[in-house]
Amino acid sequence: MSKLVEPRIPTGFMELLPQDQILFNRMYDTIRRVYERFGFLPLDTTTIELSEVLLAKAGGETEKQIYRFTKGDHDLALRFDLTVPLARYVSQHQQELVFPFKRYQMSKVFRGERPQKGRFREFYQCDIDIIGQDELSLFYDAEMPVVIYHVFKELDLAAFTIRLNNRKVLGGFFKGIGLEDKTTDVLRIIDKLEKIGRENVTAELLDDGISEENIDKIFRLVSIKGSNDEILEQLKGLGIEDETFKEGVSELDQVVSNMRLLGMPEENFEIDLTIARGLDYYTGTVYETRLNDYPQFGSVCSGGRYENLTGFYSKTKMPGIGISIGLTRMFSQLKEAGLLKADTKTLVKALVVPMSSDQMKEALQTASVLRQAQIPTDVYYQQKGMKQKMKYASRLGIPYVVLIGEDEAKQGKVAVKDMTESTQTVVTALEAARLIAGKK
Amino acid sequence: MSKLVEPRIPTGFMELLPQDQILFNRMYDTIRRVYERFGFLPLDTTTIELSEVLLAKAGGETEKQIYRFTKGDHDLALRFDLTVPLARYVSQHQQELVFPFKRYQMSKVFRGERPQKGRFREFYQCDIDIIGQDELSLFYDAEMPVVIYHVFKELDLAAFTIRLNNRKVLGGFFKGIGLEDKTTDVLRIIDKLEKIGRENVTAELLDDGISEENIDKIFRLVSIKGSNDEILEQLKGLGIEDETFKEGVSELDQVVSNMRLLGMPEENFEIDLTIARGLDYYTGTVYETRLNDYPQFGSVCSGGRYENLTGFYSKTKMPGIGISIGLTRMFSQLKEAGLLKADTKTLVKALVVPMSSDQMKEALQTASVLRQAQIPTDVYYQQKGMKQKMKYASRLGIPYVVLIGEDEAKQGKVAVKDMTESTQTVVTALEAARLIAGKK
Repeated sequence: MSKLVEPRIPTGFMELLPQDQILFNRMYDTIRRVYERFGFLPLDTTTIELSEVLLAKAGGETEKQIYRFTKGDHDLALRFDLTVPLARYVSQHQQELVFPFKRYQMSKVFRGERPQKGRFREFYQCDIDIIGQDELSLFYDAEMPVVIYHVFKELDLAAFTIRLNNRKVLGGFFKGIGLEDKTTDVLRIIDKLEKIGRENVTAELLDDGISEENIDKIFRLVSIKGSNDEILEQLKGLGIEDETFKEGVSELDQVVSNMRLLGMPEENFEIDLTIARGLDYYTGTVYETRLNDYPQFGSVCSGGRYENLTGFYSKTKMPGIGISIGLTRMFSQLKEAGLLKADTKTLVKALVVPMSSDQMKEALQTASVLRQAQIPTDVYYQQKGMKQKMKYASRLGIPYVVLIGEDEAKQGKVAVKDMTESTQTVVTALEAARLIAGKK
Repeated sequence: MSKLVEPRIPTGFMELLPQDQILFNRMYDTIRRVYERFGFLPLDTTTIELSEVLLAKAGGETEKQIYRFTKGDHDLALRFDLTVPLARYVSQHQQELVFPFKRYQMSKVFRGERPQKGRFREFYQCDIDIIGQDELSLFYDAEMPVVIYHVFKELDLAAFTIRLNNRKVLGGFFKGIGLEDKTTDVLRIIDKLEKIGRENVTAELLDDGISEENIDKIFRLVSIKGSNDEILEQLKGLGIEDETFKEGVSELDQVVSNMRLLGMPEENFEIDLTIARGLDYYTGTVYETRLNDYPQFGSVCSGGRYENLTGFYSKTKMPGIGISIGLTRMFSQLKEAGLLKADTKTLVKALVVPMSSDQMKEALQTASVLRQAQIPTDVYYQQKGMKQKMKYASRLGIPYVVLIGEDEAKQGKVAVKDMTESTQTVVTALEAARLIAGKK
């Protein structure tokens, strides 16, 4: 035998034990179900892309993080998000798709960044996007957070708030105070307000050559607080005449009204004028989502509207709006905060246990009956002592053990042991199926 | 604007349009559901592994096909199957898992081989494996094909046959005729019988130094035909005294009996003594699955028993048995053979259409009612003519359009248009939900 290799995975990667994988999959399935209910179509783009195509737009940090390699003559790379592949896909299949094109994709993406707590190099993103041709109704800006509201409601994790803003409000405001050229810089700095605090933001803005007077105005804007309607009122009352600013306020106003019409409760969303989203390509509505009691998680679901998704691949202007749940990261944070409790180590509802190999025939037939009734069923095939067999069931947390001894076999019956209540009932296999299926 | 990059994916990769993705996901979900019903636990290992760990065992062809790259100090590789990651995982988490450990994994694997028709460089494998510590009951050998029987039954694709054999039958037989040292070579050649025919196999065996007398005996073995019981009888009657051979025949006999007890119909399985499976590590039962009317597809689901899964990572002997559906390849073959017909381009059941923007409020409220009833619902938000709106519904094949005009809005009603029957009913939103949910 050759020398043993230590079994391990690279650092910065998440891999789960089965009991956690069950919880993870439940969350994944819930998100998918809600996405489908809102009319999004499934997509599963390739994990590996041509570097030339994938990196058409990228640069800077993104490009450094990418897993890139050659194979034969091909310069390849792993996708680092699901948005660039979507842009490539809709450009490639423009003629075959129906627009507005609504798709979801829930897949792993890869970023070889320096691993930090809660950051992974391979992680699931759960994205929805809607892509229009030439134009895309503002109503979609209201639908996105409503989808996310239902996702988080059904995930049933913790209280949450979807925050929204509009880049035109900020952009127009900066234009109005003569800082148009600095908009991107200033937005990037403001975006850090929650993380680094007002003092540090002020320092960075001064460094960037912003006058104290303008910094004051900026803080007056981002300090506007109150109910959603109060915020909208205050924005309108600022007396800023810039057209972009007015358009942004009007859009924000309409989005809020439409969200209400779509049934979004007031307690689950708020306008937050400090949200800019670091990414350059957002041009209108932007979103973040926080768990109220866990601000340290940061935003667990973010997105926004972009004027032209496919500029690098197609001449058709395709505006879009998208939002993304960082599932791997959120799962890891929730687990660490003790918010995820594995209630089971298995999906199995019934373990069929023959007392000895003489009852194997009856055991196999009973398993078939239970499975036919759609009950996830396992059979203990190993020839071990009774103690061992019961230990297998209790270690996995299987709720029902279906015992078959000599007596039961003779009577054509089975003994159903309820592992939580420690009761035992002797019934036929069919009755056992009904009994187990009845209690979930 | 910079020069456009042509949107495309590398050759040898599969990517689907939404209508096909819906079909693909349905198959994926069916396989997963059956796997779970048989008590397999979900696993999702990392896509990227450390090369040193992943390639502990590999060599030759596999190593050439691998996507391998460095990032920082790390020598990394993409998994090329789900079995090696499983071996690594069970060795790594031995103390935390309950054995026998039953897991399923349905994930993409990556092989940079020369692309051929029906072969992909990135494809889904849908694996189940059961891993024991030190020992693993022979009953699992019967359970595996029964799981696969239920999968293919529920996929409802075409008639299929699961073929099985036992490596000990072949191995013992070769030992019996003095060809023990050549077993692997001869098995590899025999494995090609169906593909290249008897004449070419004979030539290869002669080339390999096998005597004509032994070739004759080999063909006598692999020509044994008949019902499963007849084949077993003939094997027992061959008069071969080798112990391994006898063990193999006895195992095959027991597996067949147990498969019957587990409810496997005779028409869906057959002993096939020509099946050897190319891989060196199978040591007992081996499986292949064919679609009866599409032999050119080759095996769509294969696997077998191996004596020691984890030899490279752990001193504990862990025998296992596994089987795998090559979903991407099978999907592509089925599609090409015209066996997959997209019955829908969308999962959406209802499209809410306001006649003008005046009815947007009612449209949004109606959509909420339908979604609350779990009906996948879309709203046509774009301000277009009626013709455009109906075209969107018909191009996607949405079965119900829920129209809201001035009159309907006034009455607090909606007009439900059944797109297949071209009928129209004016009802409340709640009644519309009941109507649409009632007909699937």
